[in-house]
Amino acid sequence: MSFYQRLKSRWDTTGSLICVGLDPQPELFPDTYRDSETPIFDFNRAIIDATHDRVCAFKPQIAHYSAIGAEDQLAATLEYLKTRHPDIPVILDSKRGDIGSTATEYARESFERYDADAVTVNPYMGWDTIEPFARYQDRGVIVLCRTSNPSASDLQDLALASGKPLFARVAKLAAREWNGNRNLALVVGATAPEELAQVRSIVGDMPILVPGLGAQGGDAGDVMRAGLTDAGDGLIINSSRSVLYASQENDFAEAARAEVERLVNLANSFR
Amino acid sequence: MSFYQRLKSRWDTTGSLICVGLDPQPELFPDTYRDSETPIFDFNRAIIDATHDRVCAFKPQIAHYSAIGAEDQLAATLEYLKTRHPDIPVILDSKRGDIGSTATEYARESFERYDADAVTVNPYMGWDTIEPFARYQDRGVIVLCRTSNPSASDLQDLALASGKPLFARVAKLAAREWNGNRNLALVVGATAPEELAQVRSIVGDMPILVPGLGAQGGDAGDVMRAGLTDAGDGLIINSSRSVLYASQENDFAEAARAEVERLVNLANSFR
Repeated sequence: MSFYQRLKSRWDTTGSLICVGLDPQPELFPDTYRDSETPIFDFNRAIIDATHDRVCAFKPQIAHYSAIGAEDQLAATLEYLKTRHPDIPVILDSKRGDIGSTATEYARESFERYDADAVTVNPYMGWDTIEPFARYQDRGVIVLCRTSNPSASDLQDLALASGKPLFARVAKLAAREWNGNRNLALVVGATAPEELAQVRSIVGDMPILVPGLGAQGGDAGDVMRAGLTDAGDGLIINSSRSVLYASQENDFAEAARAEVERLVNLANSFR
Repeated sequence: MSFYQRLKSRWDTTGSLICVGLDPQPELFPDTYRDSETPIFDFNRAIIDATHDRVCAFKPQIAHYSAIGAEDQLAATLEYLKTRHPDIPVILDSKRGDIGSTATEYARESFERYDADAVTVNPYMGWDTIEPFARYQDRGVIVLCRTSNPSASDLQDLALASGKPLFARVAKLAAREWNGNRNLALVVGATAPEELAQVRSIVGDMPILVPGLGAQGGDAGDVMRAGLTDAGDGLIINSSRSVLYASQENDFAEAARAEVERLVNLANSFR
């Protein structure tokens, strides 16, 4: 089954467009995790157990693991998800991008070492740096298009000679030239709803991963109005910090579930 | 001492502009390494021992380690370099790029976990994704500008409304707006000598990392004519595969040294 099919099936069965980002910050964990040998995995497992039936995907951000040498706990998290919840697509958020021979190694990292269902990639170096990922036809490749951070405009909004912004060119390349295996998707930040509408008009029903709701200030209504497909889905709306750290006490897992419920209902109120 | 000062001192004392990329491919190692528990570290150490006095820098590419869970051998390689050869700048080639809070984690990975002297970063997401690296004032931040791969032109050569290509805008941003801490450098591929000349004219004496000599087909004479500063240096010319796998037999270390010697002399013949 392709990444798109798995995602579509998940949207249909859960009615949820919400993705939870697994971006562990151990300094924000409750004290009870301090003595564990695998605090990150234990925390992730508690979040997964509390929220799995209300999410369309999980998205671990790899920097939070690699900064502190916790690759084994990332692998354990993926293993847990694959074993317990094989129906939930897992997106490894690593924004890789390098020349072909190196991209092949990164694709191995994403799809063989961690067995992720999809990975985020950076388009600055062009197609031959994306192709080694796209070659895995049953996996998704989610290309940065218009990101959620304040400086996204530095390059992505630059007007090309055609008058159109760079991010629109990326959207067009992804939809019309790079998607031979039908496994590409895009990243457009929740903080850029006008750009999201523009991208949606270019890419048809291609899935769009939308980070930036919550801590980064994106508005759910704006995102839904701008980004839904004609079929009423097409969005993977990610929230990380507002879910993981809804409470920093021992009730963090229940608080995370309540926040996911709130986001699902909020998003669905605009469907 | 800043990254630039360390590099300058290294250029001066060795007379070499050549950098060796530590991109291990265990399937290309001589058979004698097959039984080691740390074949990558052992191989790297042999390469370092054989070439250290003729290089201006070493550049491990992280994907070759992370694809197979060999982070510990990357860390051991850095530790060996820092202990034995503290004068040689080490560039961690990881091409990171993410929103500020995540970039902070990647900077931790680069400069604290691995203690690299410099790191490569991707500019597609803009300044706030580079700043968390540049904040480490004694470390170098090497921004992708015009890369060496065939598809580099997909985005980097696109003409902006000004008529100038995107990569020239990146060079200008790096030189004029982002370099407050004087610790930025750029990547321009050896396969793009005209673009290298254009970038050099924009950035003055900013160091430029030039991959793509050797296996990727770049020409040393073209690179030197296009990229040297008025002071006759400013280039970090990287070769990985042509050095590491000059021989795949037990004489690989001597063969690597001979190839480095050849590259140093070749480059210097155009100075």
